[in-house]
Amino acid sequence: MEKVSEKVRQIIQPGEHSYVFSKYLEPIAHVKPGEVVEIYTKDAFENRITSEKDLPSQILGDYLNPQTGPIYIDGAEPGDTLVVHIIDIEPDRDWAVSVMKESFGGLTSTDLTPMLQDPLPEKVWIYKIEDGMVRCNDQLNFPLRPFLGTIGTAPEVEALSALTPFNHGGNMDVPDTKPGNKVYLPVRTEGAFFFTGDAHAGQGDGELCGVALEISARVRLKFELIKNKEIKWPRIESDSEYMVVGSARPMEDAARIAYSELIKWMEEMGWDKFEAYQALTQIGKLHVGNMVDTYYSLVAKIDKKYTKLD
Amino acid sequence: MEKVSEKVRQIIQPGEHSYVFSKYLEPIAHVKPGEVVEIYTKDAFENRITSEKDLPSQILGDYLNPQTGPIYIDGAEPGDTLVVHIIDIEPDRDWAVSVMKESFGGLTSTDLTPMLQDPLPEKVWIYKIEDGMVRCNDQLNFPLRPFLGTIGTAPEVEALSALTPFNHGGNMDVPDTKPGNKVYLPVRTEGAFFFTGDAHAGQGDGELCGVALEISARVRLKFELIKNKEIKWPRIESDSEYMVVGSARPMEDAARIAYSELIKWMEEMGWDKFEAYQALTQIGKLHVGNMVDTYYSLVAKIDKKYTKLD
Amino acid sequence: MEKVSEKVRQIIQPGEHSYVFSKYLEPIAHVKPGEVVEIYTKDAFENRITSEKDLPSQILGDYLNPQTGPIYIDGAEPGDTLVVHIIDIEPDRDWAVSVMKESFGGLTSTDLTPMLQDPLPEKVWIYKIEDGMVRCNDQLNFPLRPFLGTIGTAPEVEALSALTPFNHGGNMDVPDTKPGNKVYLPVRTEGAFFFTGDAHAGQGDGELCGVALEISARVRLKFELIKNKEIKWPRIESDSEYMVVGSARPMEDAARIAYSELIKWMEEMGWDKFEAYQALTQIGKLHVGNMVDTYYSLVAKIDKKYTKLD
Amino acid sequence: MEKVSEKVRQIIQPGEHSYVFSKYLEPIAHVKPGEVVEIYTKDAFENRITSEKDLPSQILGDYLNPQTGPIYIDGAEPGDTLVVHIIDIEPDRDWAVSVMKESFGGLTSTDLTPMLQDPLPEKVWIYKIEDGMVRCNDQLNFPLRPFLGTIGTAPEVEALSALTPFNHGGNMDVPDTKPGNKVYLPVRTEGAFFFTGDAHAGQGDGELCGVALEISARVRLKFELIKNKEIKWPRIESDSEYMVVGSARPMEDAARIAYSELIKWMEEMGWDKFEAYQALTQIGKLHVGNMVDTYYSLVAKIDKKYTKLD
Repeated sequence: MEKVSEKVRQIIQPGEHSYVFSKYLEPIAHVKPGEVVEIYTKDAFENRITSEKDLPSQILGDYLNPQTGPIYIDGAEPGDTLVVHIIDIEPDRDWAVSVMKESFGGLTSTDLTPMLQDPLPEKVWIYKIEDGMVRCNDQLNFPLRPFLGTIGTAPEVEALSALTPFNHGGNMDVPDTKPGNKVYLPVRTEGAFFFTGDAHAGQGDGELCGVALEISARVRLKFELIKNKEIKWPRIESDSEYMVVGSARPMEDAARIAYSELIKWMEEMGWDKFEAYQALTQIGKLHVGNMVDTYYSLVAKIDKKYTKLD
Repeated sequence: MEKVSEKVRQIIQPGEHSYVFSKYLEPIAHVKPGEVVEIYTKDAFENRITSEKDLPSQILGDYLNPQTGPIYIDGAEPGDTLVVHIIDIEPDRDWAVSVMKESFGGLTSTDLTPMLQDPLPEKVWIYKIEDGMVRCNDQLNFPLRPFLGTIGTAPEVEALSALTPFNHGGNMDVPDTKPGNKVYLPVRTEGAFFFTGDAHAGQGDGELCGVALEISARVRLKFELIKNKEIKWPRIESDSEYMVVGSARPMEDAARIAYSELIKWMEEMGWDKFEAYQALTQIGKLHVGNMVDTYYSLVAKIDKKYTKLD
Repeated sequence: MEKVSEKVRQIIQPGEHSYVFSKYLEPIAHVKPGEVVEIYTKDAFENRITSEKDLPSQILGDYLNPQTGPIYIDGAEPGDTLVVHIIDIEPDRDWAVSVMKESFGGLTSTDLTPMLQDPLPEKVWIYKIEDGMVRCNDQLNFPLRPFLGTIGTAPEVEALSALTPFNHGGNMDVPDTKPGNKVYLPVRTEGAFFFTGDAHAGQGDGELCGVALEISARVRLKFELIKNKEIKWPRIESDSEYMVVGSARPMEDAARIAYSELIKWMEEMGWDKFEAYQALTQIGKLHVGNMVDTYYSLVAKIDKKYTKLD
Repeated sequence: MEKVSEKVRQIIQPGEHSYVFSKYLEPIAHVKPGEVVEIYTKDAFENRITSEKDLPSQILGDYLNPQTGPIYIDGAEPGDTLVVHIIDIEPDRDWAVSVMKESFGGLTSTDLTPMLQDPLPEKVWIYKIEDGMVRCNDQLNFPLRPFLGTIGTAPEVEALSALTPFNHGGNMDVPDTKPGNKVYLPVRTEGAFFFTGDAHAGQGDGELCGVALEISARVRLKFELIKNKEIKWPRIESDSEYMVVGSARPMEDAARIAYSELIKWMEEMGWDKFEAYQALTQIGKLHVGNMVDTYYSLVAKIDKKYTKLD
């Protein structure tokens, strides 16, 4: 942690990390809109898997995906929208880890899609991060593309597992929550109760085996509030695109949510509902974020240049 | 049809177009591997909708999505793979049409997902094609990006509707079946019985309202055979990517098919199964082709540069 | 085949059985409305598995589920409904067979839900039919409850696999197509082109491992026509219940189809749509026929006594 | 509440009912294993809808499905199983109510399956309970068949909405949680934190319009503990059947869960896994509890007489 900037406030989880998105916890920090903070996150395995010889089934605890939070956003009230500017995500170590875990992944039976077959074997891959690449061997050698697998606010009355993506954000595992982009999250409790974690050094669409290039990280964020502006599902904005993330099962329901909320966003911009439906038919983008979590997450997008009205 | 090249053989449907992918029909042409042909296709409405005042429910016949074919590929036998080089797709008119049809589309109840609500209204959009754009009005104005919505071979014993995408190809509606790319299709009957149609001047991911920018077209193709090479699902190759199209419901099954067949392709290249699973986790791409047809079609991809083995 | 009645016409497949529901075939018999016929069916494995030592993967051919048909129903025209009275189903041998087949079943990965795990082992169970029971051993010993796994008409333009249940009937695997009940099937081609096969000596809901108690059988049926009466999905009537079978994926779409078509049936009886919706909410029944075929089949039912209007 | 028995302890919610299954609440009562208690439950609308003229969208608050609880079970520890004997369910008033609510139900678009169509109209049905019948009019007149729509324990770390059925029980809406039956629930927190509510005077399979015959009720229960016996999903036992409830989306995943957990139960009884798979194939039952809640609930059953081993 030597390279940490001295200029921004650092937020480090004081005790146990959280394994739920929940308002039933004490905030670990209070942050004002406009302030830049640097948040330290642990990897999805709480940094416990460190070697290709480790057996995940023996080494891991009861819970996965530790979150840093809750962070109380001053002035946030139910009915507002929290805007999170992702300024930077820096790996907090020089390696990443991926794993084939028993009964978890996109091409295996799981607790929610159980079958009678034997599980796949466990396997650990350790990658070295250097020179902008994440490298395990000559074949498994990919560009560094850091993003936040998990980012969200507390639900209104529920406490949801850190493994779950839903309309509060959460474990969406979409590569679009990356530096340079803004994430819009619903505020459903006083103070918003923001959480993040599960930084990835990179990931393909779907997070196929269930585990991306997991890292601990320093995450530089800035928060803003849009008062009295309610959104139902997380939105993302890049320089060139508007995006909505829908998380549901079956996957077509996630697609329906993502595109129908993007139509709502376009209606807020002045579009007619059916004209927006038509525009997205011809120019919309829809890719799979994760096909492995308790809900599947899909991202619907439109290039900003096609949303302009006269 | 004035601009038609004289140098390549033209294939024009002699009588009725086909509304099934079927071996129970007479071939309309015989083509040799290596020969370039120019195939004329009608739009998905058999060119019947020509004005924004047309009511689809009154103007359309019993069937949709007319196919040009079957085209007999000389030498093709069950167990071979047919490679279709898409050389060029040229709109055969200067306009495209899209439609909101009753009980069809991604954000409406349908015959397969019925509900008690009233259907959405019908609506027709006519676009002008010029200067590389497809333009309806100031907002609905998109780049021309032609591709084949429907392309496939005859199934082994079934005759499948031209509206259905499945493991023979068919109505996949994936924008990746475009000029410059090669489509690999299974040969399941002597002569392969190739069909194509449903050219689009462009389409977003999902083909959200169910109807892309429909055109009639001249399609220049070249066929090749890979003898004694069996594939289970359609594959696509571009200069830079390997792709597989999976078509199924629910959508997660289409995702599972697409990625598991891409793993098989990588195994054919020499990859270990679990290393391929890992590589696709970190660098694979997965987008939605259609979320409106009888099966949903998803495309899994990998950049060729990440598939190289020493 | 000694016990065959001499009084009714017997229909025995003259050559190969059919592996598709198709109008592109020659009828094997013509039957008049009102006539009783006795149809011979083979089991789903074409009677090839006869011992617990048989290995299905070695012994079976390319196709499964042979159908007896097509049977031409005199006077049947598109837009009519074919009523099939199931008078009797008699096992044509004194044993039944069930099998665990590779990549087939409700608790295993399959071609449509592929995973990377190893397949389940193959296994054959042979049952003795006697004294109204079907007995393999002390535990696997169940009452004889014969019904037709597969029953349907030819689709309008498609030829659909004998393994597929859909809106033409087909491989529904619902225990309600049993003696004493009437099955209503849509007529979509001249002569209806009726097929049946896949008799079961019994089956639980879901046909969990994919293979019920398979038998060859003599099936006594009587056909009737309702002229100019169009139905979209198969219906079943017992002495006490009205039923509709919906077949689709995901399973909730099969449920939606079954119940919405049952509401239509109640509307034909004079019910208001929303009153029918309410009645089925409180008194409807919905069970799973199969959770293993290319589409899942669910049966929605209502007791006749709750459908009476003044 | 005049008819209340004096012999058993009554448990009445002291303040607000709970809208979550949560361990983050103060228990409203402590109960010892073996003790019979009488619990008062409100209907799913907190008894607010009382007339067919009420508009649910105006009259209802932010939350639905109030639960009575948490009830602390003395001696219950994580890893135990809580057995709930449902002794009696008595309507606490002489009427029941059902409703068509906006964007809720089995044959309408919803928040999780959104579409662009207009919602169904709102509608209220009031039923009179008398002489063992629940009667709205001549057609809507059904037998009284009371059961608990919602019954469960607190999750390990989550607080789940009272509208959600999952592996803790919850809003399963299966008619099998009725007098005479035992419900087995997992204990995941000290004291188990039991909740119940949402009593129904009757319901069909699927709870089609989303709202059964809702009543407030007096529910007589007896609790037992099985120490050091862990179950993953709720089980139900009647005099004649063993049942498991699986809750998931898509519906086939609920079916897979229900049947695979029933196989585990049979393995606990001494069955071989594949013999149990075979038995359920031939004699299992599988019906839909709800097709409207955040997860769909299916019930897999086997008659006890087919589970006996020598």
